[in-house]
Amino acid sequence: METVAADDAIAQFARQDALAQLLGIELLEAGPGFARAAMTVGPHHLNSHGILHGGAIFSLADFCFAVACNSHGQAAFALHVDINFLATAPVGARLLAEATEEHLGNRTGLYHMRVMTEEGTLIAACHGMAYRRREHLA
Amino acid sequence: METVAADDAIAQFARQDALAQLLGIELLEAGPGFARAAMTVGPHHLNSHGILHGGAIFSLADFCFAVACNSHGQAAFALHVDINFLATAPVGARLLAEATEEHLGNRTGLYHMRVMTEEGTLIAACHGMAYRRREHLA
Amino acid sequence: METVAADDAIAQFARQDALAQLLGIELLEAGPGFARAAMTVGPHHLNSHGILHGGAIFSLADFCFAVACNSHGQAAFALHVDINFLATAPVGARLLAEATEEHLGNRTGLYHMRVMTEEGTLIAACHGMAYRRREHLA
Amino acid sequence: METVAADDAIAQFARQDALAQLLGIELLEAGPGFARAAMTVGPHHLNSHGILHGGAIFSLADFCFAVACNSHGQAAFALHVDINFLATAPVGARLLAEATEEHLGNRTGLYHMRVMTEEGTLIAACHGMAYRRREHLA
Repeated sequence: METVAADDAIAQFARQDALAQLLGIELLEAGPGFARAAMTVGPHHLNSHGILHGGAIFSLADFCFAVACNSHGQAAFALHVDINFLATAPVGARLLAEATEEHLGNRTGLYHMRVMTEEGTLIAACHGMAYRRREHLA
Repeated sequence: METVAADDAIAQFARQDALAQLLGIELLEAGPGFARAAMTVGPHHLNSHGILHGGAIFSLADFCFAVACNSHGQAAFALHVDINFLATAPVGARLLAEATEEHLGNRTGLYHMRVMTEEGTLIAACHGMAYRRREHLA
Repeated sequence: METVAADDAIAQFARQDALAQLLGIELLEAGPGFARAAMTVGPHHLNSHGILHGGAIFSLADFCFAVACNSHGQAAFALHVDINFLATAPVGARLLAEATEEHLGNRTGLYHMRVMTEEGTLIAACHGMAYRRREHLA
Repeated sequence: METVAADDAIAQFARQDALAQLLGIELLEAGPGFARAAMTVGPHHLNSHGILHGGAIFSLADFCFAVACNSHGQAAFALHVDINFLATAPVGARLLAEATEEHLGNRTGLYHMRVMTEEGTLIAACHGMAYRRREHLA
């Protein structure tokens, strides 16, 4: 929380994410190359099997990825994300996700995302590669 | 459309996808190992940069993947998806996505998903690997 | 074969690949955004289980990827490859691999690689993303 | 080294890898869900650009993956690997790679591999998913 408080620009950037709002994703913490967020599983996050949708898990991880890779003040865009689905979580479970920076180059950055339950069960693990534009965020 | 009409079980399976409903994803066509869907980009599909969200693109591709890999009457679950982001599309654009079966084994299946605009611009390309349970769909 | 003959620069580029020579990979055909190669499985391509090594399959696919993404005369480098392993092949089997261009942008390109046996069994399927430098090949 | 010494079965499994021998890959350390290996870049590891080949980097990472996922005494096979290429290293550089276990389920396991130079430059980062057979290693 303090990390967000320490960087209003990142928090404001995160609040502008319309899909994250629709899905109930909230930013918990962010700093240079790092972000943490939460989402409580609801009935609108389910798939045809009645279990947690891959698209909901991905969106939570992708939100952390976007905040982390844009945290350096340079606009960054996802080139590629791979996601490994490892477990599921029931309606009512609170999911926590985080993105950490594994590599930061001039034009690309690599991020590692993990989505887990509050009890520590790993739901998904991802790698995301971002392309960093020369332009700076407003 | 006829393909769906020809297989009510798949169409019903697809209609139960709550996240797809929330995001405005509609099934166009489905058959054994194959699915096609559409989504019109709205303001709720945007990210913090004000452009089409990776999570929305992924969810559309993942919906096709789920319908295609469950089309054989055997319950299937995503193990892994990788998504390559290639272009964006503005609010109002109608996106078309399809999943085709690249491999079908006893316990796994591999699907190739493409998301494009109606004009044919490729927005994203994915591979998804599914694990096929022995249990059958109700 | 003719496609190679039609473009000596690509064939010469391919011949300079030292790892491909070590592994017995041979270029069959190449053209703009496209390459096809072969490798006969030998005992030196096996892993600790005594079956075809993932590194050998990857190297064959990666060779096609490199030839295809460098075929436009602009130096290109792999950013990311994902490989799905689907089946194996015994010593003596002749593997065929091809790379096709799924997307070509200013700075990136996306390639789809497939490795199969002569009989058509799909051994692996990959996506590779390349970064295209502004510099041209000598 | 001691970790290897502590488990001769893993060390012996690793020594049977013919491709690893061809490429000069040596096991440094291994234990349950973990492996570390080294490879010194030679001229036979280069690609057509005269730089370190993606197939050589992949093979080093894949070797660690195989040792780590087979370290529990249950035969395991790669389903999928994604590799992110981040930097290169010159002929003569000694590369170090390690695989760590990010998830271990009944039938699948997820491994995180990193390849770096002795000086700590990250060359590549991977995720690998393994399928665990019920059969045990001899």
